[in-house]
Order: sequence, then structure tokens, then C-alpha cells
Amino acid sequence: MFCEITEVRNVTSLGAGPIGGGWTAHFLANGYDVKAYLHDKSEIEDFYNILKTAWISLKALGLAQGASLDRLTIFNDLESAVEGAQFIQESAPERLDIKQTLYQTLGTIVPQNVVIASSTSGLMMTNIQEKCSTPGRTVIGHPFNPPYLLPLVEIVGGKKTNPKTVAWAESFYAASGKSPLVMKKEIPGFVATRLQEALWREALHMVANGEATPADIDNALINGPAARMAVQGQCMAFHVACGEGGMATNLDQFGPALKLPWTRLKAPELTKELRDRMVNGCTEIASGQDFKEMALQRDKSIVAVLNAIKQSK
Amino acid sequence: MFCEITEVRNVTSLGAGPIGGGWTAHFLANGYDVKAYLHDKSEIEDFYNILKTAWISLKALGLAQGASLDRLTIFNDLESAVEGAQFIQESAPERLDIKQTLYQTLGTIVPQNVVIASSTSGLMMTNIQEKCSTPGRTVIGHPFNPPYLLPLVEIVGGKKTNPKTVAWAESFYAASGKSPLVMKKEIPGFVATRLQEALWREALHMVANGEATPADIDNALINGPAARMAVQGQCMAFHVACGEGGMATNLDQFGPALKLPWTRLKAPELTKELRDRMVNGCTEIASGQDFKEMALQRDKSIVAVLNAIKQSK
Repeated sequence: MFCEITEVRNVTSLGAGPIGGGWTAHFLANGYDVKAYLHDKSEIEDFYNILKTAWISLKALGLAQGASLDRLTIFNDLESAVEGAQFIQESAPERLDIKQTLYQTLGTIVPQNVVIASSTSGLMMTNIQEKCSTPGRTVIGHPFNPPYLLPLVEIVGGKKTNPKTVAWAESFYAASGKSPLVMKKEIPGFVATRLQEALWREALHMVANGEATPADIDNALINGPAARMAVQGQCMAFHVACGEGGMATNLDQFGPALKLPWTRLKAPELTKELRDRMVNGCTEIASGQDFKEMALQRDKSIVAVLNAIKQSK
Repeated sequence: MFCEITEVRNVTSLGAGPIGGGWTAHFLANGYDVKAYLHDKSEIEDFYNILKTAWISLKALGLAQGASLDRLTIFNDLESAVEGAQFIQESAPERLDIKQTLYQTLGTIVPQNVVIASSTSGLMMTNIQEKCSTPGRTVIGHPFNPPYLLPLVEIVGGKKTNPKTVAWAESFYAASGKSPLVMKKEIPGFVATRLQEALWREALHMVANGEATPADIDNALINGPAARMAVQGQCMAFHVACGEGGMATNLDQFGPALKLPWTRLKAPELTKELRDRMVNGCTEIASGQDFKEMALQRDKSIVAVLNAIKQSK
């Protein structure tokens, strides 16, 4: 149905903003030929500036063989921009009417065996694909800002998306150097934004109540959990911090703390089912590693992060 | 009243667990003479293992001149452990009765001009200091795990704490290589844990509802916002991402999104007062820097973090 992942050479990126520009830079850096569609000619200068800025970082991270900014062609005409595309990343403005009309058009001018992914952070694919005549190959591929640097891409289909599209997008993004996360359900905010948004709203409450300033919030994150979270997610951070007992010890020991007013967000009931999911999930991630090894690796990576930040300034 | 910060040479650390051990390693690495109090002789072996593990990282971060593990003396007798101390870091078990009794004793055997700081993460100093006859010099000094690596220390007094104690603790921790955060109010969870706990409870909800697995949660953090948060806190991340307009643009543009179900935590009302606090706070942090410079610095540091993590594995 879709082409082989290894055969993808031509990618089209739609959108002139920081997300569309970021994706364009990402695909160029990973050795693809990229056609970019800009709605208006006047956007070209800003678009090139995004690429130039992104390229500095992408070079420092390491370019793929043959990667070059010269492999970009810019179009202001949608039909020419999508011609020959083997994958399309759409980063149009975040308005449902604009996206619906765009997918209606793309649905007829782009061959059905080409996957079209949307960068939307706030809309659902079920709604975006409503007017599209070929919705099976449409999917969400939500990056994190800046998209040329942060590896995450969250993937989820709408009601009419073919499950094979989701699987293909996962493989393609992985091959293109991204870290895909396939969502279990189509929920608002996906996973990463939900986590960030919970933290953000607690931060706003603290500032609103005079409990902390913006400087306090940033100080708390930068010098507190963030460096560890960059190395270990929060699940493994708790799992490893509790020694041999891992997540089971964490939940049994700190379970009662979930009832404490340590944030304005109420925790879910710690049922046996939730406990088992957390414990089994962490055991799977650890996949047999000893907690002491994991703690040593955590420390080594945190030291590397702290030293790297210091040296980068 | 208290001694000059630069005159502090002798620190006492109370507690044999990972927090007491972590603080001991931190002060030794920063060139202090440290007396450690262990409740029981049987704890010595585990305690030394914590120190040895911490020392690997502390060496890699850079030891202060003259810093040595040999400058540690271990006691099982409280009076001898606190004798001559110019600062005491208490990391006893997280039980109010144990801490109250301990501060009752410390209140009489430790001279009044010596600050005593508690590592507690869940108790309030107002309660801990209740039975202490000299509560003015007692204060919270809450580290983040692992305390020998993550620089944050959150400082807040209880009702009977002298404000000079808070100021002294802030200066002393900064001089000892920590990043202090003085709390505006005595609230449960302080600042960093509240942020982390909001994120954590949203994660538990997602796992409970089959929206994500523990592996998804960690993937989302590690490959999504964490590396950026380690470089820029969340306030400055939004401020810089919005270009010239900064936090004002963010709140005006994404303000309506605060009403969306992007997390189970309800946001506070975005009043003019909250908006002003956020905007002014970010302007202060930026202190005149151009957003383009800040974005370039952000990218440079994120690249350094991502490369450092890769190389550390």
C-alpha cells in the first residue's frame, strides 16, 4: 500500500511558521529532498531565517550523509509542492476550518498511497479529516518545539485513519531520526503536552497566589527535576530512587502522599490495577538491569548534562 | 548573630539515608569538614556506599580545593556529632514525632547562633519546631534527589523562624555550591515538588485510563520538554518561543487554551494581575536580552545536552 520506508527520498512540508520551518530543517538534515509550501511569497525571508538558525544546531548534532540546504525547493503553489511527495508534513495555522479545507484539497490532489501527517497540537484528526475524501492515510504527527531539536513526535489517527497509516508513520519518523510515540487514544493535548500543561497550570496557580514568581518556577525546574527528567523519565526516576523495591515501593510508601495537597491536581485512586500497570511498566523499561547500575548510569548522564549546560554558556 | 558565611568550616549532617549521605558528600566535595551522625552503627556500610557512589559524580563535576572524603568523621552519639558545628543539616526519617523530639534535643545542645536546616520534603517547619526551645534558627532546606547532583535547595521558615535565619541559609547554601530558592510562603510540597507532582498525577491518570503506558510517559518527557526544561524553565520556554511578544503573546494567544481539557488540572483565572506577574517576571529574567539571542543560546544548550546524554551511554 504505502511505499517502503527506505525508499522515501521526497518529503513535502507545508507551512512557513516555526513548526513548518523546523520540520523542513529536520528532513533536510536527515538527507531528504524537501519541497516546502509557503502560502505567501512574503514569508520566504523569515522562513530562510528559521532554516539558517536550525541548521547551526543540526550541524552540531550531526548531519546525515549528503544532507544539504540546497536540497530544498520552495513553492507557493500547492499542487507543485506536493507533486512527487512520498510523505507530507502539514503545519498550517491551528484553525479547524483552514485545516479541513486543506485536507479536502490534499485528499484529491495527493495519491492515496502517500501519508499526510498534521503537526497540530490542539486539534483532533477525527475533525481535521472530516471533509477529506481519502482520510485513511491522514494522521497526527505532533512535534515538540523546537521540532528540529526535540526528538519527540506523537502519532495518533482519527476515526477514519487506517491503522496501517499509524504503523507506517511510526516507522518513517523513526527512520528519519525522530522518537515516535504512538498514542493509545485520541485525547486532547496528547501525552507530552498534557504532562507539561499540568505542571504549567500548577505554576500559574502558584504565581496567582503569590507562592512563587516566574523566576522561582524556572529556578525550581532547571536546578531541580529537569536535568534528571532529561535523562530518566519520571516513572524510572521514582523506580530507581526506591532501590530494589522500585516502583512498587514508591507506590506503597508514597501512595498516601497522593492524597496530600502537594499540587492542586487530585490524583486518581491508586487501585491494584493502576499499581500493577505502573510496576509492570517500570519492570519492562528496566528490562533486567540492576537498580544500582541504573542509578550509576543516571548519575553519569546527569553529570554530563550539568557540565554540558555550564560549558555551553 | 550567626557566623560569617566565609568562616563556616564545620558542618554536621544528621541521618544515614540517601538524603543524609547525599548532603554529606555534597559538603565534603565543597571543601568542608563534615561530622555525620548515624543513629545506628549498622548503618555505616550503606552510608559509605552512598558516599563512594556520590564521589564519582562529584569528582566529575569538579571538587573544591582541599575537598576530601578523609575530612569526614562519623558519630553515633548526637552530642559529639553537633559539637563545634557551624551549620547543621538534618535528614532524619520523615516522621513528625521523630523530628519534633530531635529538634527539642538540638534546641538545647546546639548553641543558638547555629542554623539547623531540615531536609524534609513533606513536613512543615512550623510543626517540626513546636517543641524546640530555640526555634528562631531552624529552617527548611529541602534538596532534590539526588542531593549531591541536583543543585536546588528550597528554603522556608516556620512561624517561629527568624527571617535572618532564612537569609543566612540562602547565602550559606549559595556559598556551598547550591542553587537556593527562598519560598514566599510555607506551602505543602514547596515549589519543585508541586510542579513535579502535578505532572506525576496527570501521568497516573493517563496510565489509569489506558491513555499511556509508563514507557510512553518517560518517552514523552525525555524526548519532549525535559531537555529544554533543563536549559530554560517553562516560563522562559514560552516567553522565548513567542518571539518579540514573549509571555504577553503567549498568554493572549494561548490563554483560551487554559480552558481546554489538556490536563485534568483546572487553570486559575487569567486575571490582569496574573498576566502582569507572568509578563513582568519573564521580562525581569530576560533582563534586556534579545529573544533571538535567547533562542540561539537555548538551541546551543539543548544540543549540548542531547549530545552529552548520547555520549554518556
